[in-house]
Amino acid sequence: MKTVVEVRRKALAANDQVAAELRRRFTDSGTLVVNLISSPGSGKTALLEATIPALGDRCSCAVIVGDLATERDADRIRTLGVRAHQVLTGGACHLDARQVAQALAAMSLLPADLLFIENVGNLICPTTYDLGEDFKVALLSVTEGDDKPFKYPAIFARAEVTVVTKSDLLPHVRFDLGAVRQQVASLNPIGRLLVTSATSGDGISSWCDLLAARRAAKLAGRR
Amino acid sequence: MKTVVEVRRKALAANDQVAAELRRRFTDSGTLVVNLISSPGSGKTALLEATIPALGDRCSCAVIVGDLATERDADRIRTLGVRAHQVLTGGACHLDARQVAQALAAMSLLPADLLFIENVGNLICPTTYDLGEDFKVALLSVTEGDDKPFKYPAIFARAEVTVVTKSDLLPHVRFDLGAVRQQVASLNPIGRLLVTSATSGDGISSWCDLLAARRAAKLAGRR
Repeated sequence: MKTVVEVRRKALAANDQVAAELRRRFTDSGTLVVNLISSPGSGKTALLEATIPALGDRCSCAVIVGDLATERDADRIRTLGVRAHQVLTGGACHLDARQVAQALAAMSLLPADLLFIENVGNLICPTTYDLGEDFKVALLSVTEGDDKPFKYPAIFARAEVTVVTKSDLLPHVRFDLGAVRQQVASLNPIGRLLVTSATSGDGISSWCDLLAARRAAKLAGRR
Repeated sequence: MKTVVEVRRKALAANDQVAAELRRRFTDSGTLVVNLISSPGSGKTALLEATIPALGDRCSCAVIVGDLATERDADRIRTLGVRAHQVLTGGACHLDARQVAQALAAMSLLPADLLFIENVGNLICPTTYDLGEDFKVALLSVTEGDDKPFKYPAIFARAEVTVVTKSDLLPHVRFDLGAVRQQVASLNPIGRLLVTSATSGDGISSWCDLLAARRAAKLAGRR
């Protein structure tokens, strides 16, 4: 269906334009923006619940959360004492740049050192939508299976960081971490891979160090 | 963007027409068709690996598997001695009726008592595409969290059966089965919910009984 392809290309071009404006704005405010993408239930909100307290005074944080329905995830984030805006997409399977711009207009999220965008739970469609972020992060929980990077190659090729989550469950599932490392390395040779658990705290300090270092590098680059 | 909505509506109407033809064809061949939908890694293939041997001589089975990339899942099914056709969608986030028709043309999958269509791992987009199936099944693994039905309401409202998977992991995760039952019942008062584990075999016989009964009812309705 040629028209579907054409309409989609136009929509993506319009999205990229808004994303470019957002990116300039985030550079001006010195905000590092991280776009978190994963399947439903991989632990995006749980990762933020572990990350934000662990960052402590190092970075001020704000969060935009995308979901089809419910304010549940934004409510969880707000209990951390952090500004969080919930975008309800209705039926839409991904966030787009316009929704991020609307979230910034609706709520005072900036200035912030770090803005996390927790995308809609979907390992496919959010991949192609630029939200003005500095980088994408793909989350993969150990319960989803070690075959996922090659089955969903686009996101693992584009994500600068792959965060393996729920490492505390490794003793109870079959999950070959070496195989996942190899797949991610072959899809994205310069990508980073971190192994974490929001429950045990495993890997959270390395993840926080990465975020703080990237934010410092962004500020240094602006000078 | 009005044009996107219009183009999408036309694409869905074209899909529904092909699906209606498929449905007639499946009725003629006496084939019960089940469309399995879930997040990546919820255990669709694992459920089939447990189901097909457990059905034994009761039903002859065939499988169509949709994935972005790799023949992995079809290969796993074929080791069970069952006909399986892998549809590679490229970037597409769901199967459509045309792809099912093409799979039937490419490989001799019928006659079969039961045709499983294992959709692309995505809890959102496959929901709106009719594939000529008798009913949709939503899978939800206990590791994904008990908040998912209300966060992804469309699929749980439309699925005739919700299959909770990986029940063997219940001792290791926080998952309120009662809360999931309530959410599913409120979204779909006539839906069924089964709790299963492909690892322990928990619930697999009830699931097989449901499939065999539905297939018998379809044959009876045709007479």
